[in-house]
Amino acid sequence: MPELRKDPIVGRWVIISTERSQRPTDLKKEEEAPKTDAKPKFCPFDYGNEHVTPAEVLAYRPGGGAPNTAGWTLRVVPNKFPALMIEGNLNRRGDGVYDMMNGVGAHEVIIESPDHNAQLSNLTETQFEDVLWSYRDRTMDLKKDKRFRYILIFKNHGFRAGASLEHSHSQLIALPIIPKAVIEELSGSKEYYDYKERCLYCDIVAQEIEDQKRIVMENEDFISICPFAPRFPFEMWILPKRHDAHFEDATKHEIQNLASLFQKTLKKLDRALGNPPYNFMLHSSPVVMPDLTYYHWHIELTPRITRLAGFERGSGFYINPTAPEISAQFLRETEI
Amino acid sequence: MPELRKDPIVGRWVIISTERSQRPTDLKKEEEAPKTDAKPKFCPFDYGNEHVTPAEVLAYRPGGGAPNTAGWTLRVVPNKFPALMIEGNLNRRGDGVYDMMNGVGAHEVIIESPDHNAQLSNLTETQFEDVLWSYRDRTMDLKKDKRFRYILIFKNHGFRAGASLEHSHSQLIALPIIPKAVIEELSGSKEYYDYKERCLYCDIVAQEIEDQKRIVMENEDFISICPFAPRFPFEMWILPKRHDAHFEDATKHEIQNLASLFQKTLKKLDRALGNPPYNFMLHSSPVVMPDLTYYHWHIELTPRITRLAGFERGSGFYINPTAPEISAQFLRETEI
Repeated sequence: MPELRKDPIVGRWVIISTERSQRPTDLKKEEEAPKTDAKPKFCPFDYGNEHVTPAEVLAYRPGGGAPNTAGWTLRVVPNKFPALMIEGNLNRRGDGVYDMMNGVGAHEVIIESPDHNAQLSNLTETQFEDVLWSYRDRTMDLKKDKRFRYILIFKNHGFRAGASLEHSHSQLIALPIIPKAVIEELSGSKEYYDYKERCLYCDIVAQEIEDQKRIVMENEDFISICPFAPRFPFEMWILPKRHDAHFEDATKHEIQNLASLFQKTLKKLDRALGNPPYNFMLHSSPVVMPDLTYYHWHIELTPRITRLAGFERGSGFYINPTAPEISAQFLRETEI
Repeated sequence: MPELRKDPIVGRWVIISTERSQRPTDLKKEEEAPKTDAKPKFCPFDYGNEHVTPAEVLAYRPGGGAPNTAGWTLRVVPNKFPALMIEGNLNRRGDGVYDMMNGVGAHEVIIESPDHNAQLSNLTETQFEDVLWSYRDRTMDLKKDKRFRYILIFKNHGFRAGASLEHSHSQLIALPIIPKAVIEELSGSKEYYDYKERCLYCDIVAQEIEDQKRIVMENEDFISICPFAPRFPFEMWILPKRHDAHFEDATKHEIQNLASLFQKTLKKLDRALGNPPYNFMLHSSPVVMPDLTYYHWHIELTPRITRLAGFERGSGFYINPTAPEISAQFLRETEI
């Protein structure tokens, strides 16, 4: 059983993963990207290999068909090497100054397309919308499990961003704790709300639309921006114009507009920097929290194009060589 | 002039570096490690090249000699491509919801040895002690500048950890702000102190010595441990047994014992994992703060042996495949 452990100083929870356990000797081999010409013989996410993955928890089959067979356009399955285990209770406990609990949670994989070579940026509009609908469908289902406080949806694109299979997929982790990055956002935006009686994110959206200089794209419901104090070159945020704490409250119209803007933003990134590795995280309000006046869901998109994260990851201190006004202008001018 | 910008949501300050400015087109080229057989023709940190670096701010010359000439055993120079500028005032200002100030600060390079191929782990005892003395000497000097609130000392070892020159060196950045990671430690340990009236770090030292299972090394004044909730495989902390908030208060005896334990810990890491890239950060109390009862200086050492930092860096959420009890045992058993 994996274990969730809390750093007593800064309060950060860490998963000590047993399923993915690596002996020290395994770590000696420095990880290298697989050769690009080495075509994998077998992909568990391709049509016909449905029996190789754990049984699906969701699939879209416009033409019908039995579960765990070909014919799907999108498929969600439990991760075969989950960081957390779905069965069991939390058993919160201590050991002197330390706190821990069982690593209970869900770890799912969203296979975004049956096409082995498809990428998010070149899916059809409907396919991209379906990816977002699957995020929502899985969130709504997992919300029912009272052990979970947070549902984290993210994607690792490219080897250097942590992807271990090249077939395009996103991931979902349902957690019995709220990740530190979200706690910090909740607490910072609450402080602002307590002082101003306004949502900080709403104020950012208004100021960015007024300023224009950090805007990458805008449509009726969303903006994508290079944020004012980005940690990484070409970091981008996608923000809904309408205040809402929960992603899963988005309307059909908003999902369509998000799909459109999100995909075009990814296309611009691809074109501008030559298909760089990236990660994105969907930051929504904790499922256990009601509609918050001070929190505003959003997506953070961080390309991995510099090595700078080495020192920064341990200090919380970032040096960014590219001003967001420059990267936003470059992306605005990138034709897609 | 570089700019310090504050993320209004989580309060994280970021340096937008103009001296290191990269146009978007520069970022397209994925950074690759230099070929190991390509011996650099010229190293600015070698003897005889003292005129190539900015003028030294400190040098140890046991045999005497003029500044900025050969004959030194350790040399500290301003970074030629500084993230922050030493001249100027902060000029704190705002722009709507955003806050910023001029990027004023010191950015220095500690050249640990004149030997181009030396590494921290194979310096002589005296050389290693001198590295620590230079950290202290520069801290004492920069403390006098009232613009600075924090002095951050760190090292990037190996290309993948962010080192851009192979000649062994550490870095020092004096900042007009306190890095977020340190603020979090201060606030977490203060909360514990307010509740328990004991220093959390002192309690950790006591519990780890009692438990033994996460201890890597111990001597009269220091321990090195794999912490209870490590973010990364083989993450280690070095903690002084005597409570003190400021590194620069260490006694001569303690500096000697730190040098001895620190170097042996690095040697164990080298042997155990085959000279992996790593970063270390010296976390001391902000220079503007008096002796704190609740904060305890220490060193955090994080090897870079997994790709996991991709997603984690944006979420504050870590999955670690190696339990610290396993890595500590492995390191204890590694002969040096």
